[in-house]
Amino acid sequence: MSKAPVRVVVTGGAGQIAYSLLPTLAGGSVFGADQPVVLVLLDIAPALEFMKGIMMELEDLACPLLAGIVGTADADEAFTDADYAIFLGAFPRKEGMERKDVMSKNVGIFNAQGSALAKAKSTVRAVVVGNPANTNAAILAKAAGIAPTQISALTRLDHNRATYMVAAKCGASCGDVEGVYIWGNHSSTQYPDVSHCKVKGAAPALDAEWKSATFEPTVQKRGAAVIAARKASSAASAAKAVCDHMRDWALGAPKPVSMGVWSDGNPYGVPEGLYYSFPVKLTGGGSYEIVGGLAIDDHSRKMMDASAAELVDELALANSLIK
Amino acid sequence: MSKAPVRVVVTGGAGQIAYSLLPTLAGGSVFGADQPVVLVLLDIAPALEFMKGIMMELEDLACPLLAGIVGTADADEAFTDADYAIFLGAFPRKEGMERKDVMSKNVGIFNAQGSALAKAKSTVRAVVVGNPANTNAAILAKAAGIAPTQISALTRLDHNRATYMVAAKCGASCGDVEGVYIWGNHSSTQYPDVSHCKVKGAAPALDAEWKSATFEPTVQKRGAAVIAARKASSAASAAKAVCDHMRDWALGAPKPVSMGVWSDGNPYGVPEGLYYSFPVKLTGGGSYEIVGGLAIDDHSRKMMDASAAELVDELALANSLIK
Repeated sequence: MSKAPVRVVVTGGAGQIAYSLLPTLAGGSVFGADQPVVLVLLDIAPALEFMKGIMMELEDLACPLLAGIVGTADADEAFTDADYAIFLGAFPRKEGMERKDVMSKNVGIFNAQGSALAKAKSTVRAVVVGNPANTNAAILAKAAGIAPTQISALTRLDHNRATYMVAAKCGASCGDVEGVYIWGNHSSTQYPDVSHCKVKGAAPALDAEWKSATFEPTVQKRGAAVIAARKASSAASAAKAVCDHMRDWALGAPKPVSMGVWSDGNPYGVPEGLYYSFPVKLTGGGSYEIVGGLAIDDHSRKMMDASAAELVDELALANSLIK
Repeated sequence: MSKAPVRVVVTGGAGQIAYSLLPTLAGGSVFGADQPVVLVLLDIAPALEFMKGIMMELEDLACPLLAGIVGTADADEAFTDADYAIFLGAFPRKEGMERKDVMSKNVGIFNAQGSALAKAKSTVRAVVVGNPANTNAAILAKAAGIAPTQISALTRLDHNRATYMVAAKCGASCGDVEGVYIWGNHSSTQYPDVSHCKVKGAAPALDAEWKSATFEPTVQKRGAAVIAARKASSAASAAKAVCDHMRDWALGAPKPVSMGVWSDGNPYGVPEGLYYSFPVKLTGGGSYEIVGGLAIDDHSRKMMDASAAELVDELALANSLIK
């Protein structure tokens, strides 16, 4: 091993998405085939016993690139000197809970973890997966006091779902599809946009009826549909999306993809300070650039604004709950 | 996609190991980065509803190499024209069940699936994971009527566990370790053998006490230890081992590995007709060769014979239960 290992923190480290995610992180396809990795699993104290079983299984992968495994309930220990952080853990909305109560729990979690994230390497890159992911990312950024461009929210699962639907509709492979983008919040207000998409290099003929009556609602509600069928939320597909997101951010991507990133108000008039999903160009090394110059028609504008409005509301609520 | 897709059947397709396994099979690291794959999930009829959720998540991976997904409870439909078959499903031993009763269930399953496997491509390669894996492989081979060398039993998880233990003991990476082998049955009689192992090209100093009091029992009982910690059996690490096994069998491996294969009695005096774990050389294309010429000391002989005796018993019981 010639390269120094990167330290990758995974919160909710004893959970279902982590269980699907960790083997791939250890295998070399995310951070590079010659890049050793130390995996740091962070979870609440009651989960540590169970986490031991996961750590045993990580050992049993016998991955040459896995240079170390740490399990802890101490956020300061976990994030110190971290290169990457993947925030899977959040407080889920339970039956009968008010939106404000859930947000209050998540403000507490991401505020505390943000303070700990301040101990990471100055170059740290973080992605938030736990819902409400975009707003949790904003809380995290504020608490960590690092550049807001070092933090992102996952919308790659939505992006992958949308890409698959276009491929299936056109009888093509997912590899033939580009330019399907997710705008806005990782919620049912997200806008899955096919107006810039190409299949095998050409704009496909996708009728307006299919777009608004089938494509958009299916992507927006896919998470709930998976839960209804599987009686559990998406874990394998979420983990795959996290890997895609981190790999492309770390190593670069051949085509623009969707990523929830900090808005400075440009170039599409999304309010400054929101974490909002945009099409981004990724050239590796943890940088990104929002794709500019895309024509936004009336339907797109309306959908994009609605999702932005939801995020403005969410962020105002979150900020009001920070003590 | 220039290559024709390979058809890969996974039994127990709605189960936990399948859930960890399927995304990797779809991703190109097992059958090749340019090899499209059709995934066929076979499970019992009551699992089909749940399986739909898994199939949705497979779509949502947006894998360019995933050329099709089939879910079925019909073994004939599943195995017709299969290139590869991965047998995860088996009948687990439940509290209070006699060994004979469990074996009877598995004889039923693997006899029926073997008849269906006869409809696969003539070049099909199959691995059995569901326990008792070695004996299930023997039943399967008999029922399928194909060359016994086309069928194997998974001991790669044991191999990986043993490799990790040696690496950890020597302060090395798993990539530095070779020649740790599993002999015999995938059960607690298996013999994890370090007498031929090298770390960074040299024989490591491993004391006899560590070997017999720590290393051997830990590897033999690792499955139970994971269950005790995780409250669920190994799924992620089993799935990783299946991927290692199939990748190496299909594409070749740089170093010999452990694999449960049909014994013709040579070269180590293991009774003919058993599926027994040996060190094997893999040069790709579904062929293998048992590594010959290894010196077998008294301890090894005793351990190898004990595991063979268990397998002889198991196979006699299984054969007595075939109707």
